[in-house]
Order: sequence, then structure tokens, then C-alpha cells
Amino acid sequence: MKIWTKDEIIARFDMERAVRMVEQGFIAYSRKTTQVPPIQNFQFEAINGECCIKSAYVDGADTFAVKVSSGFYNNPAAGLPSNSGLVMLFSARTGAPVALLQDEGWLTCVRTAIAGQLAARVLAPPEVHGIGIIGTGVQARLQLEYLRPVTSCREVHVWEPNAERRAQFADDMSVVGFSVHAHDTADGVASNSNFIVTATPSRKALLESNWVQDDTHITAVGADGPGKQELDPVIVSRADVIVVDSIAQCSKYGEVSHALSAGLIQLEQLTELGTLLASGKRGRDDSRGKQITVADLTGVAVQDAQIADSIVGVTA
Amino acid sequence: MKIWTKDEIIARFDMERAVRMVEQGFIAYSRKTTQVPPIQNFQFEAINGECCIKSAYVDGADTFAVKVSSGFYNNPAAGLPSNSGLVMLFSARTGAPVALLQDEGWLTCVRTAIAGQLAARVLAPPEVHGIGIIGTGVQARLQLEYLRPVTSCREVHVWEPNAERRAQFADDMSVVGFSVHAHDTADGVASNSNFIVTATPSRKALLESNWVQDDTHITAVGADGPGKQELDPVIVSRADVIVVDSIAQCSKYGEVSHALSAGLIQLEQLTELGTLLASGKRGRDDSRGKQITVADLTGVAVQDAQIADSIVGVTA
Repeated sequence: MKIWTKDEIIARFDMERAVRMVEQGFIAYSRKTTQVPPIQNFQFEAINGECCIKSAYVDGADTFAVKVSSGFYNNPAAGLPSNSGLVMLFSARTGAPVALLQDEGWLTCVRTAIAGQLAARVLAPPEVHGIGIIGTGVQARLQLEYLRPVTSCREVHVWEPNAERRAQFADDMSVVGFSVHAHDTADGVASNSNFIVTATPSRKALLESNWVQDDTHITAVGADGPGKQELDPVIVSRADVIVVDSIAQCSKYGEVSHALSAGLIQLEQLTELGTLLASGKRGRDDSRGKQITVADLTGVAVQDAQIADSIVGVTA
Repeated sequence: MKIWTKDEIIARFDMERAVRMVEQGFIAYSRKTTQVPPIQNFQFEAINGECCIKSAYVDGADTFAVKVSSGFYNNPAAGLPSNSGLVMLFSARTGAPVALLQDEGWLTCVRTAIAGQLAARVLAPPEVHGIGIIGTGVQARLQLEYLRPVTSCREVHVWEPNAERRAQFADDMSVVGFSVHAHDTADGVASNSNFIVTATPSRKALLESNWVQDDTHITAVGADGPGKQELDPVIVSRADVIVVDSIAQCSKYGEVSHALSAGLIQLEQLTELGTLLASGKRGRDDSRGKQITVADLTGVAVQDAQIADSIVGVTA
């Protein structure tokens, strides 16, 4: 078994290859040509910690993946990162361990940003005049970076509750070529954007429906587990198109689950990202005027399997 | 994260400590002071392969465990072992990876034998006059070895379908101090033994009820997944005491599941090994004359967590 450090993983990473493979993973998942066992969860409530084990196999691949990722939210007080994680690949021909990727959660961050890019490719309005970002963490930054290939818009509006972190985000992302406006409210972001990404660990809605303009796309990536929420469920019910990474997962948690349990939408309104990508069509019907579209991304293990394979499976 | 090779694991292994910790694991499991998420399974039917991911945390432990173990049964034709596996331990305080044990399935073999020893301790007849072994593989051998501390009997009767392997088992185990008789039928084993262990990958009953004498204990360790079976379900229904490692698992698969689905026994008749061990009592009531007892061991992830911790958690 080859052991990969985070540096080695980053050195081998090829964004185009990873995007292509994650896209294939979503398509296979929606075609049900994958094996994705139920997620295993551990909760360590007394110390604000959690861990999940996600595993997946895409039919025909050389390997299957087991990912262990944890969030221990008291860690920063002790000077440690909240998140850690690793991915293991095993041979689908012999069962033998093939690779251990000690990515410390890096691959999870990137595969989530890739999902955002793929959603944007099929759901972004034809002309994005402002990109709204709710959240200023690693994932918020990556989502913005990964939008570069799918829109020429560099006008960015950002909000999170903490003013210092908003300012820091604006400074940092300006350096890499965006024109960033930090707002005092999420309303300010929504009023100035027609493409919004929410990337926070919030447990209550941050974005209210009456702030969201017609003709807007919203990608929500924060609600990756029970109890999490970023969007007012009315936004989901207003949407002309609701895309999810996994109908099974998003109906249990994710933004869509809140709208479903409130009776605001029906299960039949959901389209999986993989189904949409396989169709080769855009998800919004631009001929029908101003549309609201929502992408609810909770994270599916096929993304982990595919991005890990994009590192390890390269033949020399 | 420290990486342990199989040799390093074996060098550090302390049987008494491991037995004590696995026993504590069973007790905690039955007291429900553990977290044991549902097992993840992969099936690779075209090449006769399978893989399962078992995870567990025993409340208060320093670490939680994730075990990946696979059986690819076409491997031997290519000169490779059928089974492989590894165990990872993560900090229950920070989520960080602590240890990777590349045991190649060794720890799984041993923790299964330890479960057999624990069952024997509370269920073996007061005087064992003959030990019956059905199966001649690694697990059959280990089960016999691990009976040494709980019975002074060294008379062994063995059967499996293949005569050569029976003879080889007899030769090998005689060298290490047992008096071994290879039989042409399982009947021959049962007639001469009052303590029987079945340790095969069988998918149909190998041991018929009318062969089994009164006053016998039977431990079955082979039925660790759906479709597997070693005992005639009538044996289970004849038993005065039915002990299982996990009521949840054994009612889904394991020997007990066949007797349950045939309506031969009721769920209420099952006692968990951990409950019995915690009671400090023997499982058979020797005052009530000749009793049949059965232990159905399907393998619980707390065993993996505890045996791995018995290696890694030793303070210098």
C-alpha cells in the first residue's frame, strides 16, 4: 500500500482530470451503477466532535474508496484544526489495500468545490452579474475559485456574521483577482447577486426568500448532516428547478429535507445532478424568462472515490 | 499516525490483555455504552469478492476503530491470500488518525478466537471429554488453541469434507500437544465430543441435530454474513441456553436467524454474551442435568476496536 502525504497529493492533483472523474461519478451514481453503502456516523457530543465514514465503488473502477472524515469543533481552542480526514483505496480485483491518502480533509474540500462547479455549469444564469458568497471559510473560498472556469464574472458580494472575517475574505480574494464587496447583511449580498453560494456550518436559515431576486441560482453546500440549514425553505419552494446530488441523502437532510418536511415541495420535483449532467442539457430553461434554481449538495461518497482515483489511478 | 506492520502487531500482542479488553468490549456492547454504526458492505459478485467496513467506539476509550476486511475467494488461484484487512484507530478526543494496523486480517482471526474462548469459559460442560472441530482452516486451528486456558481436555475430533486437509490438521495439531482423531463424517465428531466448534464458510448445515449428544456445548463462528450456515436449526431449538454476540446481528444472519425464521425459537430466548459475562455467572445450569448450549458468534466491531486498542493503547 502506497502512503500519500498531503503535499504529494496536491503535487499530483490535476483539476481537469478530477472534475471529469467527479462528473462521471455523479452520472454513475444517478444511473445506479455504483455501490454506496449507508454512511457510518460517530457522535462525541461532550466534546463537540463527530466523524463519518463514507465508502463508494463506481462499477468498473480499479478501486473502491473508504473515507474517514472528522470534525472536532473544540480543537481550535487547543491550537488544532477542526477537521481531519483520510481516504483509503482498495483493489476491486483482489481486495488488497492500494493507497492511503493522508489528505487531512483536503480532498473533501476540493471535491465539494468541484460539485459546485459542475452545478454552476448547468444551472448558472447566462449572464452572471454578481456572485454572492455566504460564508468566508475554506469552502467559501474554494467555491469561488472553482467558479472561474464557468463564469467570467469577478464581481463578488460576501457576508458572514463576523465583520473581521468578512474583511479578511475581501482582502484575500481581491489579491487573487476578484472585486469583492463585504456586506453587513446577507440581504446586501442577495440584492447584488444572481449567483449565490452558501458555504457555512449554519443550523438555521441565513438567506431569506424575500431577499433573493428572480433569475438567481443558489448552490448550498453547508447542510451536509442532520440539523444543518442555510436557506429559508421558501426559496426551495420558489425554485423552478431543484437539483440535488443525491435524492436519498437530500430528502433526509440538506436544504431540500426542510422544504419536504414542511410540505412546500414534493419528492418528484427533485432532479439529481448526475441525471442532469448525463443529459448534456442545461438545467435552467433560459427561454422561459427569469428562473430561480437551487442546487443542494450534501456530499456523496462517489465524489471521494473519484477524486482519490484521479490522484492514485494516473498511469505513469 | 503510527503505521504498524503485521510483525510489529504480533510482537506487541498480549493474549491476556486482549482477552480482557475484548471481554470488556462485549460487556459494554450489551450495556449499550458503545457506538456501533451499521456495517458497510461491498459485493463483487463477478469475481467472488466481498468487503465489509466495521466501526466501533467503546464509551470512555481513547480511540475509535474503523476496520476494513475483505474476502476475494478467487485470489488463491492467482497465488494471493483470500483475506486481507486493516484496522485504523482515531482519537476520540481530536478525531486525528492515531494508528494504522496493517494486520492483513490477523487481528480479526484472533478476536474471533477470543470470543470462542470467552463463550467456552461460561458455557463449556464441567468436564469436556472430547473437543469436536468442524473445519480445518486458520480459524478452526485458532479456536482450538484458544480453548487451552479454559479446558484441560486435549482429545480432539475433527472433520471437514476434504480428507487430505483433515489429515493435515491432525498432524499439525498433534505436534502442538493435542491428540487428534480425523473422522470421515461430522457424525463421528459429534458422537465423540461434548464441546464442538464449527469454523467453516459453509452455506448449508454441516452438523445435524440427531448426531449431537445431550450435555454438549456448540460454538458456531462461521456464519458471519447473510446466506451462511453451519448448524441444523433444530440444534438451536434443542438448546437450553442460546448465547449470541449480538442480538441485532444474529437475528439478521448467523445460526440463530435460521432458527428464528423457521419459527423454532423466539427472540426472547437469546442472551448476549456481554450480558452473560457481566453477570459473572456460568451460562449453563449444571445442576439441571444434561444441557445443550449454543453460542452463535457473528463478529461485532467492538471486538476489533478492543483488540486494536490492546496493541496500540499500551502505555510504555
